[in-house]
Amino acid sequence: MKCLSETTVFGGTLSRYEHVAVATRCKMRFAIYQPPQALKGAKCPVVYWLSGLTCNEDNFMQKAGAQRIAAELGVILIAPDTSPRGESVPDVDYYDFGQGAGFYVNATQAPWNTHYRMYDYVAKELPELVQSYFPCNGRQSIMGHSMGGHGALVIGLRNQQQYCSISAFSPISNPMDCPWGIKAFTGYLGEDPADWCEYDAAYLLGQNGSELPILIDQGLADEFLEEQLKPENLWHVAEEKAVPLQYHGHESYDHSYYFIATFIEKHLLFHARHFGD
Amino acid sequence: MKCLSETTVFGGTLSRYEHVAVATRCKMRFAIYQPPQALKGAKCPVVYWLSGLTCNEDNFMQKAGAQRIAAELGVILIAPDTSPRGESVPDVDYYDFGQGAGFYVNATQAPWNTHYRMYDYVAKELPELVQSYFPCNGRQSIMGHSMGGHGALVIGLRNQQQYCSISAFSPISNPMDCPWGIKAFTGYLGEDPADWCEYDAAYLLGQNGSELPILIDQGLADEFLEEQLKPENLWHVAEEKAVPLQYHGHESYDHSYYFIATFIEKHLLFHARHFGD
Repeated sequence: MKCLSETTVFGGTLSRYEHVAVATRCKMRFAIYQPPQALKGAKCPVVYWLSGLTCNEDNFMQKAGAQRIAAELGVILIAPDTSPRGESVPDVDYYDFGQGAGFYVNATQAPWNTHYRMYDYVAKELPELVQSYFPCNGRQSIMGHSMGGHGALVIGLRNQQQYCSISAFSPISNPMDCPWGIKAFTGYLGEDPADWCEYDAAYLLGQNGSELPILIDQGLADEFLEEQLKPENLWHVAEEKAVPLQYHGHESYDHSYYFIATFIEKHLLFHARHFGD
Repeated sequence: MKCLSETTVFGGTLSRYEHVAVATRCKMRFAIYQPPQALKGAKCPVVYWLSGLTCNEDNFMQKAGAQRIAAELGVILIAPDTSPRGESVPDVDYYDFGQGAGFYVNATQAPWNTHYRMYDYVAKELPELVQSYFPCNGRQSIMGHSMGGHGALVIGLRNQQQYCSISAFSPISNPMDCPWGIKAFTGYLGEDPADWCEYDAAYLLGQNGSELPILIDQGLADEFLEEQLKPENLWHVAEEKAVPLQYHGHESYDHSYYFIATFIEKHLLFHARHFGD
C-alpha cells in the first residue's frame, strides 16, 4: 500500500492511499482521515463514505467539512473511489456509466465484469484492509450521497452484522425504477431485472427489513428528486416493515455538496450514537 | 448584474454573480454568501475573502467550510475572482502570472495595464457594488490566503478607514523579496522596485504602521514558507511599530485549504469581535 499524500486537518491526518485490489483487479485509491485520538494511540470507530457519480476519493474530504466533527467525535473517515480506474479498465463517454460510476455492484456482463466489482471491494476487501492497517475498534457504519447513498443502503442492508447504522444524502433509493439505475444495471448486470434486485435498496428493505437504524436527508429543491432518487419508494416500504428509518426533506436545498456540508454534523452524530461503547 | 447560480447552504444563500467591471474593463465574477439573518431582512457586516494563485471565486466557498460560522455570526462573505478573465484579456502559460494571478495590483505595464487592475476592483468598485445591492450594515473586514493574504494586507493597510480588521492565512508577506512577488511586480509594474513599495505589506507596515488589528496564521510545514511567504519580515516590522498583529505558526500544517478550514472559525470570530455594535 502506497501513501500518495498526507495533510494535517483539524489536528488529525488526511491521507490518500493506492493499492492493488483483488476485487477489482486494478490499482484503487481511497482517502482516510484519522482524527487526533487515533494519532495518539486510541482505537476508533470507522465511518465509510461512498460518493456519487463522477466523484473520486477527494470530493467528500475537500467539500463536506466532515473532518471537524470527526475530530471532535474521534471517528475515522474512509472515502473510496467510485469505480475501478486506469487505461486497462473499460470505459465509455458517459458521466453515469463506466469510470466514476461503478454503482457499487459486482458486474456480470462483459467487458465490465473483469474490473467493475465495487460491491466486493467496498463491502469486504476495503474494510479488511482498513482494519489491518489502521487503529480501528471494530465498530463501523456506512453512508453516502446519491449513487453512493444507494451503495451505502445496499451494502449496509445486505451486511447488517457488519455495521452499526446506515445513512444517506439524496440516495438513488429505488434504482430499478429510475433512468440512472436502469442504465447502470442493464449494462453491468444484464437485461433481466430479476438480477438487479439484490442491488436495489427499496427491494431489499421490502424483502428483509432492517435491524439497523437508517437516516436519510433529502433536499427538496434537488433537480434529480422526482426522476432519479424517489425516496418515497423507500420510506413507504420502511413504514410497512416498521424499519427504524428517519427521513427528512429540506426546503430549498439542492443535490450539491453544500447540502451535505450543512447536514454532515447531524449524520456523524447519528452514527456516533449507534457505535455505543 | 447577472446571477449565475444560487444554492442554499446552512440556511443562507450562496450566489455567484457576473457583472461588467469598470476597473478591469471585462466581465468579473464573484461569489457571495448571505447568512439567514440577511435573508430575513437584517443588515449584516461583510468579510471579503481574497484567494490565492490559480483560484477563482469558487474555491473558498467550496473548501473552507466558512458558511457554517458566517451563518452563526450573521456575516456576509464575498469572494471575488483572482484576476480579470476572458479571451480578450492577456494571459501567459504560467500559474503565477496572468489570469488567475492578478496579485491585487493596478498594472502599469502593457499589455497588462488595460485589464489587470485588481487593486481598484477589490478596494473600490466591488465594495460599492456590494453595498448598493446587498443588505450590508457598512462594517467590513478583509482576509485572504497566500497571494490573497498579500492582497488583504495591502488593501487593508492602505484603506484603514474602510475596514475593521485584517487577517491572512499564509500570506506572501514581503513580495518585493520573494520569487513570486518579484516576477509579478516586474511584469505588472515594471523593473523599478520603487514602484513596487505600495503593494508590499512589510514595506507599508514599516512606513505607516497599522491602527487595524491584524491576525495571521501560518502552517509550519508549508512548502512555500521560507522562499515565498516570509512572515518574519512582517512581524519584525510589526514589533518595531507596535502594531496589533497576532501571528501564530502551526506545526505540521501545509499551504492547502485544509489548513484554512481548520482555522477559519478563529478568523471569522476575530473579525466579528472587531465589527463592534
